[in-house]
Amino acid sequence: MDPKHIHFMNIAAQMSREKMADGEGGPFGAIIVWNDKVIGQGWNQVTSRFDPSAHAEIVAIRNACDHLQNFSLKGAVIYTSCEPCPMCLGAIWWARLDSIYYSNSREDAAQIGFDDAEIYKEVSRATSERHIPMIRCESENAKLAMEEWKRKEDKILY
Amino acid sequence: MDPKHIHFMNIAAQMSREKMADGEGGPFGAIIVWNDKVIGQGWNQVTSRFDPSAHAEIVAIRNACDHLQNFSLKGAVIYTSCEPCPMCLGAIWWARLDSIYYSNSREDAAQIGFDDAEIYKEVSRATSERHIPMIRCESENAKLAMEEWKRKEDKILY
Repeated sequence: MDPKHIHFMNIAAQMSREKMADGEGGPFGAIIVWNDKVIGQGWNQVTSRFDPSAHAEIVAIRNACDHLQNFSLKGAVIYTSCEPCPMCLGAIWWARLDSIYYSNSREDAAQIGFDDAEIYKEVSRATSERHIPMIRCESENAKLAMEEWKRKEDKILY
Repeated sequence: MDPKHIHFMNIAAQMSREKMADGEGGPFGAIIVWNDKVIGQGWNQVTSRFDPSAHAEIVAIRNACDHLQNFSLKGAVIYTSCEPCPMCLGAIWWARLDSIYYSNSREDAAQIGFDDAEIYKEVSRATSERHIPMIRCESENAKLAMEEWKRKEDKILY
């Protein structure tokens, strides 16, 4: 493996150790790299920012997008100290990142109490079989929203 | 169905129509309700905030958590104008929400160009079979982060 990948991974992981020691959140860090330059960074801030979505990967994506003033990170890659959970994998997908470098595996994470296995199962289940009940509740307003989007001439696709 | 559910869904959907008309983002809105009170709201802001994670559900969760100054929404429910994508389902899981009320289905969303089917498949695939390449790149720092978390005495679990 090209040593640059280890270099970038060490930046992400070292940051996570420092931020965790400061009480910011769990032991996870991530950076976004484009053309061998770091354009975004993030560390887990769930408990310090009262934000369950503030996983390292999502914080890094938001930071890089803010930096570029763009909602797409196409052409960039993410280095994350641990395999992403489904929420973060989803965010990586929507951010159009090219590839994912990760160090610790989901099995490593499970050993220190972060068990993503259940959430991976939940996302894979049919809507009717989810553990979190999903109740269909149709609203005329919600249908109109979709029709209005379809007709909207100045919409920005993403 | 209890009319209150339609009432709350209409609030979420009506908001999405207004915000979409203002150019904030796609046709999606969500609210968080606890004890029949709205404690958080969100609408899609991907393109206006340059944030691919700013789906309605995540924005609403962040808003409710900020309001409560808590990273858990246990006991609350979410009303979302459309079935959540895997990223948002993950965020709902981490936020510990009790249940999900949704109006438009993922099939409805696909018809106006938001096709979540591929991303649902991606999350369900084995790591080695993902479309976004996932490359293991082990770092000593990342291992140390996990060991330090395990030993950390003042850690806040989430």
